[in-house]
Amino acid sequence: MYRTNTCGELNIANVGQEVTLCGWAQRIRKMGGMTFIDIRDRYGITQLVFSNEINASLCEQANRIGREYVLQATGKVAERSSKNAKNPTGEIEIIVDTLKVLNEAATPPFTIEDDTDGGDDLRMRYRYLDLRRTCVRANLELRHKMAFEVRKYLDEHGFLEVETPVLVNSTPEGARDFVVPSRMNAGQFYALPQSPQILKQLLMVSGFDRYFQIVKCFRDEDLRADRQPEFTQIDCEMSFVEQEDILNMFEGMTRHLFKAIKGMDIPVLPRISWHDAMKYYGSDKPDTRFEMKFVELTDILKGYGFAVFDSAAYIGGICAKGAASYTRKQLDALTEYVKRPQIGAKGMVYARVEADGNVKSSVDKFYSQEVLQQLKAAFQAEAGDLILILSGDNADKTRKQLCELRLEMGSQLGLRDKNKYSCLWVVDFPMYEWSEEENRLMAMHHPFTSPKPEDIPLLDTDPASVRANAYDMVINGVEVGGGSIRIHDSQLQAKVFEVLGFTPEKAQEKFGFLMNAFKFGAPPHGGLAYGLDRFVSLFAGLDSIRDCIAFPKNNQGRDMMLNAPGELDPSQLEELNITTVIKSK
Amino acid sequence: MYRTNTCGELNIANVGQEVTLCGWAQRIRKMGGMTFIDIRDRYGITQLVFSNEINASLCEQANRIGREYVLQATGKVAERSSKNAKNPTGEIEIIVDTLKVLNEAATPPFTIEDDTDGGDDLRMRYRYLDLRRTCVRANLELRHKMAFEVRKYLDEHGFLEVETPVLVNSTPEGARDFVVPSRMNAGQFYALPQSPQILKQLLMVSGFDRYFQIVKCFRDEDLRADRQPEFTQIDCEMSFVEQEDILNMFEGMTRHLFKAIKGMDIPVLPRISWHDAMKYYGSDKPDTRFEMKFVELTDILKGYGFAVFDSAAYIGGICAKGAASYTRKQLDALTEYVKRPQIGAKGMVYARVEADGNVKSSVDKFYSQEVLQQLKAAFQAEAGDLILILSGDNADKTRKQLCELRLEMGSQLGLRDKNKYSCLWVVDFPMYEWSEEENRLMAMHHPFTSPKPEDIPLLDTDPASVRANAYDMVINGVEVGGGSIRIHDSQLQAKVFEVLGFTPEKAQEKFGFLMNAFKFGAPPHGGLAYGLDRFVSLFAGLDSIRDCIAFPKNNQGRDMMLNAPGELDPSQLEELNITTVIKSK
Repeated sequence: MYRTNTCGELNIANVGQEVTLCGWAQRIRKMGGMTFIDIRDRYGITQLVFSNEINASLCEQANRIGREYVLQATGKVAERSSKNAKNPTGEIEIIVDTLKVLNEAATPPFTIEDDTDGGDDLRMRYRYLDLRRTCVRANLELRHKMAFEVRKYLDEHGFLEVETPVLVNSTPEGARDFVVPSRMNAGQFYALPQSPQILKQLLMVSGFDRYFQIVKCFRDEDLRADRQPEFTQIDCEMSFVEQEDILNMFEGMTRHLFKAIKGMDIPVLPRISWHDAMKYYGSDKPDTRFEMKFVELTDILKGYGFAVFDSAAYIGGICAKGAASYTRKQLDALTEYVKRPQIGAKGMVYARVEADGNVKSSVDKFYSQEVLQQLKAAFQAEAGDLILILSGDNADKTRKQLCELRLEMGSQLGLRDKNKYSCLWVVDFPMYEWSEEENRLMAMHHPFTSPKPEDIPLLDTDPASVRANAYDMVINGVEVGGGSIRIHDSQLQAKVFEVLGFTPEKAQEKFGFLMNAFKFGAPPHGGLAYGLDRFVSLFAGLDSIRDCIAFPKNNQGRDMMLNAPGELDPSQLEELNITTVIKSK
Repeated sequence: MYRTNTCGELNIANVGQEVTLCGWAQRIRKMGGMTFIDIRDRYGITQLVFSNEINASLCEQANRIGREYVLQATGKVAERSSKNAKNPTGEIEIIVDTLKVLNEAATPPFTIEDDTDGGDDLRMRYRYLDLRRTCVRANLELRHKMAFEVRKYLDEHGFLEVETPVLVNSTPEGARDFVVPSRMNAGQFYALPQSPQILKQLLMVSGFDRYFQIVKCFRDEDLRADRQPEFTQIDCEMSFVEQEDILNMFEGMTRHLFKAIKGMDIPVLPRISWHDAMKYYGSDKPDTRFEMKFVELTDILKGYGFAVFDSAAYIGGICAKGAASYTRKQLDALTEYVKRPQIGAKGMVYARVEADGNVKSSVDKFYSQEVLQQLKAAFQAEAGDLILILSGDNADKTRKQLCELRLEMGSQLGLRDKNKYSCLWVVDFPMYEWSEEENRLMAMHHPFTSPKPEDIPLLDTDPASVRANAYDMVINGVEVGGGSIRIHDSQLQAKVFEVLGFTPEKAQEKFGFLMNAFKFGAPPHGGLAYGLDRFVSLFAGLDSIRDCIAFPKNNQGRDMMLNAPGELDPSQLEELNITTVIKSK
């Protein structure tokens, strides 16, 4: 053992003890005849003291220590004269007798402090140094704890963790696969799983009853901040259950996590239908940390000669409490915000409720105070409130724009506190959504998702209105998990395929494997999957999932530290029976 | 909820209760006017009863049920007249009121019983049905429990589970990599990790202090029974530790597993040097469930005119207690066994200790009773014992042959009981081994393994004799885990590379990435990795790791159930900038 204690555990109770600590030199300070070294390990920071008066040669040795040197120091725990209340070890210091340099260190390319001077690229290239920063390591510690608590909860509830294979086959539907050439089967390829969906359903056919797995999944898609080519799912499935059973089980898991990790008791999760989520928030993952629900204004504002509204299919607005003080400049900036191509609104109308209760709007020339008072009433707005209105010829698109405006207002008004959590279930997703591209109905979740029993007759008459037994868990506007009850009845499955436009032959070709397995006795079953990266980010209050991943990839899918991917030896390619083709541009 | 109880939990205490069970029809029997259905789920089997007299139509419905139908049955728990003590639910049965077929089932291609009629190929193709068999599912349940207990122990000891990436880069040394073409980086490839060795060492440089991960690893090697292209490691690393600390920590983990899973208290693990393991067992993973240690006989048996022994570099034997009754036929079969090409001995000499203490050997014409009594004394053999002797011109090769003979005798004499466990550490592995192929010393473990401090001077004078701080945990002749203390001193590392014949430039080219990271302050560290598949197999008493893997691959690396690998769509290949090359034969 190189040490008797860690750098995070000594306090006033240990004064007088002889201890040995190991760690990295965080800071070195000389003051008068004294040298102070802050020694850091995963557990904390402790101050080492060297006195020129007491031991000149040891002090000189300490003066030669550089930042990030690896040290082993033996000495006596002493009470500090000037204590540091911010540091758990801040009441004591170590009067060092013996100092050993276990390893020297080159000067790191950026400072190893929470508030570092290193840019993103540099820190990614030297990720092993970036991970020394306490704030970065804390995210990984949180990740460990969350995964452990998830396993504990699921184990206690009879779930078995079953490892499914990483080398599987390419799936005909879905996102783009990463593939792996097979040396032993020339010309053939494995694919890396986008999710263990089919395998977990097979485990239900096998009678595993309750399955879970914390598992890497892979999607070869173009990347953005909250996507990684490899990501981790908490993947779950249960047999002989209805939707209610699954919602209860995983609401319980979420409650357990909040309690175990954050010491928070969360209220019973509200449930909102997909339809209402779209109507009131313009999103299937509403941020419910704040109200500011949409109010539809078409009936109130149409027909007064304002061409923009008169020609609109949808007029809707939000009421920002207490924001009537927004200046013209702030309102113009908001208008510019919603007009950005990513959002695409044509413009924005606003109305302030003044101190006397009168409403002053940007379209006063078209509307009488009487109509504006109706507007005010629709929001139950009060003096000092600001009403923001968007319109458009497509209700869904306009709601999405209004959603962006609502989120921006929430941010501007400080209503999206990262330390506050609002969890809910979004339920009753539609079975199908219309694809403009394919000119047909597509499965919104996946084609094995069960319709709600009461909507089954609508499969014949109005399939677009059929609701699914599908659900998402949403926290602070982030979809952390989602799933569905699966179809276990082959006739119902055939019907669902028919609506999707698959002939029985086509369905057999695409999904025959699972359908054949189901013939041998499939139980009623359902499940869900959480995105662990997103879940951890949310608990850590991070903007990007990247910061809770030890070795993430950048937007080009590169690991900057490992410099992967890279070129292969020609002999490797030959063994794999492939060649690379560099296209001329 | 489809059920009130599982099929494994009802007993005499529940008599009179109204319950609903769900599961699969395991067996259907008609006796007189009664029909009995055994309903099975993951938790057990319960008997359902239908009486023609009481409810003829319900009984008729029960008579139409086929094997593996998925059922939901409601009824009253009743005490059985003829109890089945072997089944935990064998004291009761359910008098069914209502029976619902949740799903019909086609006749399975083999019987879903522990003792099935299905061959290996058929069961692998329908693995989802094979997994219904209680004996197969039990292995997966054991796997879940072992992984969970490993995590619990390591979490309690301050280890953090950190997920390392699956898409990494190809390593220049080591086994063959599986590779993944990168779409976004044309002509470049990721590799799947053979182990997270470098990444876990980087985590030590990052100050993670105690890391573990239960992680999939990949090797594109030709396969045999105990190898799979993807396998699972319990991968661990610790900082500021010496070998002793690691052995204690993981001996503790093994002790915890035996206690938690099997209720067994294992003794302190003996430690045997690699040198002694080779000398006494001819193997670096000796099966110590039984003694039968090698005794070297060169001094005793050489020089009496028996040409085979007189020309041998090594003569050694084992003593099989109480096996003097072996017949000539059995001894001939043993001789044939060691002469098989896989073992390669030239022949075998035997000697029986007779009831009167005299020794009778197969080479009596060369040896007097006096010499044979020396032989007997060397083994401390007694009346009724059988001595078996091999010799050869290469001591190492002969010991390996003798090892095979010892294991075979252990098996024949019933000394290798799968329910008995003998654990030990093999320590002091050599740093280097001579490669005939490369005509140079190679690293036995890997080139970052630390030599024993007292052997460092030998790096200059006699490198082949340098011992490493490397260790394996062996249970019942299986290497379940192994690891080493790593070098953290750059000068020592340079010396070790030099002995391996690497110029500084070559070392930098091959291992520069890790060496550069080490420049920023590497702590003393070491670790080990367990093979989870092997560990579970051992606890389950299985001959092949395949049976503790949910969806294993066959010897051609194929998943027979998924039919993976498979061919890709040409458009997929084009996107990935590769083409397949089918070689002419």
